[in-house]
Amino acid sequence: MNYCSHCGSSVRLAVPEGDNRPRHICDNCHTIHYLNPKVVAGCLPVYGDKVLLCRRAIEPRKGLWTLPAGFMENGESTEQGALRETREEALAEVELISLYTVTSILHVNQVQMLYLARMPQPDFGAGEETLEAALFSETEIPWDELAFETISNALRFYFEDRKQDQFPLRHVEIGANR
Amino acid sequence: MNYCSHCGSSVRLAVPEGDNRPRHICDNCHTIHYLNPKVVAGCLPVYGDKVLLCRRAIEPRKGLWTLPAGFMENGESTEQGALRETREEALAEVELISLYTVTSILHVNQVQMLYLARMPQPDFGAGEETLEAALFSETEIPWDELAFETISNALRFYFEDRKQDQFPLRHVEIGANR
Repeated sequence: MNYCSHCGSSVRLAVPEGDNRPRHICDNCHTIHYLNPKVVAGCLPVYGDKVLLCRRAIEPRKGLWTLPAGFMENGESTEQGALRETREEALAEVELISLYTVTSILHVNQVQMLYLARMPQPDFGAGEETLEAALFSETEIPWDELAFETISNALRFYFEDRKQDQFPLRHVEIGANR
Repeated sequence: MNYCSHCGSSVRLAVPEGDNRPRHICDNCHTIHYLNPKVVAGCLPVYGDKVLLCRRAIEPRKGLWTLPAGFMENGESTEQGALRETREEALAEVELISLYTVTSILHVNQVQMLYLARMPQPDFGAGEETLEAALFSETEIPWDELAFETISNALRFYFEDRKQDQFPLRHVEIGANR
């Protein structure tokens, strides 16, 4: 951030009075600009004994497999975001079961929230950001071609938890605190 | 947003190619500025049969009672944010038990995540944004002087769930989708 998005003046980085962290401050219109983590919402869609993965058509990690997930938009809930991303990336309509993983990814300032979801039908396809979508059983998961650590974590949790048919919420922290 | 925070040029609101929502676009440096919901992290601190509330020293809702919570910062986890806010607002060190409420507040683009927390000792006080902090039993809760709907929801859930000694994660959506 170099300029004030409100008035267009240059901003400077300083700790505002009463605060304890440096912020981008505009000396012209006195706006303080706060930068906060973004929420990534998505699903782990299940059909029978298989899970739905999408092969990424975009960077980063183009060509690798992921779960349908993306940045939550203003004006929607976390659940709506998870359903929308699943619709956009995998052309699939799913039913949310429960919030399954909450991962704080410190070095990129993200909170990823993945919902366990049921696919009523094996209807899916490749959205614009997806090369192909496919259902995988546990033995078929392409563990070496998964796009993100959050995805391999969620899949490991799922196949582990499935043995007990209990899917408690999992909290994970990735990346060193700065 | 009127100006590009990267180069200082005027931005215009338009739907970028391949997108389906209007974004602030800079025609000079070609940055697309995305606005996303912010996470509010906090605690419902419990000591014995009482919960800890803080009376707000700042607007909005100055003078009303709330749970310690605030905007999650870059570089921290949701848990770290909840603990930090409890330390800052109530001068209390708590132990997180579990994520208890996830509330999407659509009209203000926030996701509030409150953790159920244990106070090992009844040590607390008023931080800079707090007029006073105090422990309340169920019959003492100032229901008519609570600052936010998310707070009264969390407290209602808590006293309801306490009867069964089971505290499942609660998902709530507030505000109309636009």
